[in-house]
Amino acid sequence: MSPLKLHPDRLFPADSTTRAIARHLYAQVAHLPIVSPHGHTDPRWFADNQAFTNAADLLLIPDHYLLRMLYSQGIPMEKLGVRRRGEAAETAPREAWRIFAAHYHLFRGTPSRLWLDWVFAEVFSLAQRLDANSADAYYDAIAEQLAQEAFRPRALFERFNIEVIATTESPLDSLDHHRTIAASGWSGRVITAYRPDPVVDPEFEGFRDNLVRFGELAGEDCFTYGGYLAAHRNRRAFFARMGATSTDHGHPTAATADLDDAQARALFARVIAPDVSAADAELFRAHMLTVMAGMSIEDGLVMQIHPGCFRNHNPWLFKHFGRDKGADIPVRTEYVHALRPLLAKYGRDPRLSLIVFTLDETTYSRELAPLAGHYPALKLGPAWWFHDSPEGMWRFRENVTETAGFYNTVGFNDDTRAFMSIPARHDVARRVDCAFLARLVAEHRLEDWEAAELAQDLAYNFAKAAYKL
Amino acid sequence: MSPLKLHPDRLFPADSTTRAIARHLYAQVAHLPIVSPHGHTDPRWFADNQAFTNAADLLLIPDHYLLRMLYSQGIPMEKLGVRRRGEAAETAPREAWRIFAAHYHLFRGTPSRLWLDWVFAEVFSLAQRLDANSADAYYDAIAEQLAQEAFRPRALFERFNIEVIATTESPLDSLDHHRTIAASGWSGRVITAYRPDPVVDPEFEGFRDNLVRFGELAGEDCFTYGGYLAAHRNRRAFFARMGATSTDHGHPTAATADLDDAQARALFARVIAPDVSAADAELFRAHMLTVMAGMSIEDGLVMQIHPGCFRNHNPWLFKHFGRDKGADIPVRTEYVHALRPLLAKYGRDPRLSLIVFTLDETTYSRELAPLAGHYPALKLGPAWWFHDSPEGMWRFRENVTETAGFYNTVGFNDDTRAFMSIPARHDVARRVDCAFLARLVAEHRLEDWEAAELAQDLAYNFAKAAYKL
Amino acid sequence: MSPLKLHPDRLFPADSTTRAIARHLYAQVAHLPIVSPHGHTDPRWFADNQAFTNAADLLLIPDHYLLRMLYSQGIPMEKLGVRRRGEAAETAPREAWRIFAAHYHLFRGTPSRLWLDWVFAEVFSLAQRLDANSADAYYDAIAEQLAQEAFRPRALFERFNIEVIATTESPLDSLDHHRTIAASGWSGRVITAYRPDPVVDPEFEGFRDNLVRFGELAGEDCFTYGGYLAAHRNRRAFFARMGATSTDHGHPTAATADLDDAQARALFARVIAPDVSAADAELFRAHMLTVMAGMSIEDGLVMQIHPGCFRNHNPWLFKHFGRDKGADIPVRTEYVHALRPLLAKYGRDPRLSLIVFTLDETTYSRELAPLAGHYPALKLGPAWWFHDSPEGMWRFRENVTETAGFYNTVGFNDDTRAFMSIPARHDVARRVDCAFLARLVAEHRLEDWEAAELAQDLAYNFAKAAYKL
Repeated sequence: MSPLKLHPDRLFPADSTTRAIARHLYAQVAHLPIVSPHGHTDPRWFADNQAFTNAADLLLIPDHYLLRMLYSQGIPMEKLGVRRRGEAAETAPREAWRIFAAHYHLFRGTPSRLWLDWVFAEVFSLAQRLDANSADAYYDAIAEQLAQEAFRPRALFERFNIEVIATTESPLDSLDHHRTIAASGWSGRVITAYRPDPVVDPEFEGFRDNLVRFGELAGEDCFTYGGYLAAHRNRRAFFARMGATSTDHGHPTAATADLDDAQARALFARVIAPDVSAADAELFRAHMLTVMAGMSIEDGLVMQIHPGCFRNHNPWLFKHFGRDKGADIPVRTEYVHALRPLLAKYGRDPRLSLIVFTLDETTYSRELAPLAGHYPALKLGPAWWFHDSPEGMWRFRENVTETAGFYNTVGFNDDTRAFMSIPARHDVARRVDCAFLARLVAEHRLEDWEAAELAQDLAYNFAKAAYKL
Repeated sequence: MSPLKLHPDRLFPADSTTRAIARHLYAQVAHLPIVSPHGHTDPRWFADNQAFTNAADLLLIPDHYLLRMLYSQGIPMEKLGVRRRGEAAETAPREAWRIFAAHYHLFRGTPSRLWLDWVFAEVFSLAQRLDANSADAYYDAIAEQLAQEAFRPRALFERFNIEVIATTESPLDSLDHHRTIAASGWSGRVITAYRPDPVVDPEFEGFRDNLVRFGELAGEDCFTYGGYLAAHRNRRAFFARMGATSTDHGHPTAATADLDDAQARALFARVIAPDVSAADAELFRAHMLTVMAGMSIEDGLVMQIHPGCFRNHNPWLFKHFGRDKGADIPVRTEYVHALRPLLAKYGRDPRLSLIVFTLDETTYSRELAPLAGHYPALKLGPAWWFHDSPEGMWRFRENVTETAGFYNTVGFNDDTRAFMSIPARHDVARRVDCAFLARLVAEHRLEDWEAAELAQDLAYNFAKAAYKL
Repeated sequence: MSPLKLHPDRLFPADSTTRAIARHLYAQVAHLPIVSPHGHTDPRWFADNQAFTNAADLLLIPDHYLLRMLYSQGIPMEKLGVRRRGEAAETAPREAWRIFAAHYHLFRGTPSRLWLDWVFAEVFSLAQRLDANSADAYYDAIAEQLAQEAFRPRALFERFNIEVIATTESPLDSLDHHRTIAASGWSGRVITAYRPDPVVDPEFEGFRDNLVRFGELAGEDCFTYGGYLAAHRNRRAFFARMGATSTDHGHPTAATADLDDAQARALFARVIAPDVSAADAELFRAHMLTVMAGMSIEDGLVMQIHPGCFRNHNPWLFKHFGRDKGADIPVRTEYVHALRPLLAKYGRDPRLSLIVFTLDETTYSRELAPLAGHYPALKLGPAWWFHDSPEGMWRFRENVTETAGFYNTVGFNDDTRAFMSIPARHDVARRVDCAFLARLVAEHRLEDWEAAELAQDLAYNFAKAAYKL
């Protein structure tokens, strides 16, 4: 067995001058509260505050980063405890955990390894590395701790020093869990975010049924364009009352459009009919981004666009196991022409705050930094998903900073449902940002006191400001 | 207040071995004369040799790098002293300068900060950093110095150790300022460059009027294809007599075409008519690049292509404030198919020297280095515009050198109208190139004496040779 | 004259901590046998074991990396001893070598310089650097040594510690040289690989004639779709008997398609007719990749796809000097949509091993690492061709590892016909991989013992496993 120790200098450059600067900067931000303005934790956890059950159900089965890597090396989903659609799990949690543990070396060099080692060492006080030999000891130790009061969701939320966390819900969600949290008297701040893809994307599963439900919740006829827009206004206002400060839009491309009213009505009539064409679906999503930007100017919700993913690339896997199993693949994404209709209309309006993310790193220096370095409304979200990693963050800063500066970025967000590793994810970001700043100081491109200010901004202030928290 | 000191080791890697090598290399090139073969300074400055007026008019208002960043953070153009089309400035220069000073932190991590700090410290001997508190002291100190003889354009030209500088003029320019300079007996070498976009791009503002004027200046009928080509030959020869050694072509794409004479005449007839189609405009620009390459073989002018920018992306800003306010955005650019017609025709001709620039860094290793590493006529311009920065230059060298070598590149050019910072820009390039060479030496990929030769080449020899200066 | 010495720490980072780790890792893999699973050496060398002749014919004239760079700097092919089609060489080998030597500085900063310096120092014990002064001494010393028994192909094969090397042959090849090697009793393992481009690509020179010959060799009627597929099965089996463990497919794009039998038969009828359309040619290549993947599942041959090159970009050069003279240029390449038909059909089948290469580095983090980090059948080949270089390898690891891990990569292959430099190429890869691992250790992202395991895997184990050697 091999000891598990987190080195205090991890992720800092090896050069001793730079490392000393990084260490000093990091010391000033390591213990700042966590602001998590975009994520996918389940509000039920904080509403019900039930104990988590076991290592596999908590850490393995919901984590698409882990599933994809294990699957890529020939381990079937069933062996990892993932259920086939409509069936019970074939593999017991302890057995799934053992398989994961025996393959933990596959994650060498990946961020999952960094995040999980932190969870093992810091949350569960485990002192040996995870491998086939330690698998059962891990499973037992984690189960035992999870049963304790101190490991319930609210206790961990407090222990993790989370100042505020945003979940993400569809307009069709009743937000009952958020209501429960608010009514409970607990001091933790768990807010929602408005993610209208199910009622904006005509290609979303059950789009027409979703519109029916949308209309019921909003008290509008969502099969007229006017009623549909009114329903958005209504639900956005409801989400805002439940704490939301932002909306989120996960489109296949970054296309925006600005149709006039007659065009928009005609298009709406086509997309609510059966057999919508791919072109109409794309145009409607594009148009709705501009509409949503207009509503953001009215109601003040910060707008996020997350484009550029080919979802469910493996049809067999999707058919048998469903979404979010690690089969989503980034695609080349264009922003300069795509965002222009929206930016031409609203990009100079200081009331709009539009945060854009990308999975196509080639757009950092070529498209996104120049756009964000010009338009008042536009800011850049942090390195996202596949790029939420030390190298990914480093590429983000290197490619974006010289053109957009630091001040057109919005700090870190974890974008995760993996609650246990949220502090680890923020810690990686803080370490990498401090390392990047340290290099600028060591190369005399920035003064030490400027880097210290920026370290605070990147770790805490920017996220609060950009998301109006 | 915080002291302003330029560290002698700035931009050198922190590792002490590498830094020592970089420092040694840099010491041998730091004081070489400046060769500036591509830029946008105003020849009137050197013709009239009038004093510059104040910090805002000199350093802020003409600098689109500064305007864009300030605008992106919500500061209206009017507040920066930028005039609306046809109106007087709303903000006095001192007030504009104060606003800039109060937001100078926005430029942390950007090349503008490096360039301006050099101007402040080296040109104006300022010893405190620029911020809200020092704004007035800066403004006054700069105004006072600018009024002195030693700060007039010609004096600064000499102090900056500029061996030769090229401006850029349209074929419609009379070159009167260059004539004045030549007639003045002053020893400074200020040459022009032939930039025919206004009479080559059918989508250029006033294209048909430009052709009328073009014909008048050249004594040709520019509404016949033969007369139009003769006018180019005529004006190119005139520019060459006024010192030009190069032409420059700023097209939206890198497309080239090689039409036969009948096709070319038919196309020309269409593009001089009203309502030219976008496809015809693109084809004509493409064809004219090949025509211009042919003329370069005749008259020896070095040819430069600068493609890939979406100009005036913000229509509101363009309408109210005009061009060059920081709203130009790079777009994805393709070279392999685009340049092929030209290269197939002339690429192996040693009389042609074709220098290509890009705003799409993804083409460095994939397209441009392989092309320049094959075709005798083709060379690569330095990291350009948004990439004229430490990280941008570093990426250029890392991505280009292994395939194109150093010898298919052409040294640095500043491409700027910001006269005050020209030495700073060359200094950044020299430092980064020395740092890059130092790494190769430190990693035993190059001998120290080879790096010393290359440092001289990159700082001075290559630009002189590539531009025939 | 300047001494030639290979520094033992070459290619290791300058930082002393990291360098010490890299040195330690490298010491454990430096002397491992070479596994060369993909390359282009001539099997005749090992069959006949004749002496190589002289420096120019051995090291210069067949090396397209050298020809391209020299040509790009204005040196005509004729001067380098390259023959015009159908003509004798205009320049004698010694004279060509002198020209090369006088321009050897052009290769500063390129991998060719690293490889050749190794050949000069390690194979031929030369102690001065190559330049105009040492050209003749080099030529003579190399000629003298090549005449010795110890420099014959088989002796060098053994001296180079090559455990196995794969050549690449067309299905039209008789594999007589491989047969001779096998019959000779020599212990060297030289295997073939099945590269069917001449009979799969309807745009390949002589496609229809190739099909005739293909049918003769296989005893099938290759002008029926059934006979054509049977011929592939037949020749694949023959290649496998002659040692092949893999196939290789060098297509212009990564397009795959999965046609039903009727569609495939109709398409086949069109592509064997004269004047095949570009679209049909592309679709047939695409379909055949999926067919070949199916055959790989049957016969176990590992499948390699090398897409994305614009061959023979310079038409004049191609006409007069033919292929492989350094005029091939990479193009932008798309994988996510392109590979989907094949991956949807076979990507989850553990019997398929599909190795993909790219010349478009933008796809590393955006497309290829996510795909390889999901599909069980898919693995990533090493940095290829223009990117087979220190910076290229470093970018590969930095962009791929966090998403695909190390275990979805396949180790190094040299992909070369430059037999003399094969050890140098593997040595560069081992050094760069050890440097990359050392950084992870120095930054506490990996334990030292993990890095030691991985160094062995990357240098030796992965290639053997991935190629079933």
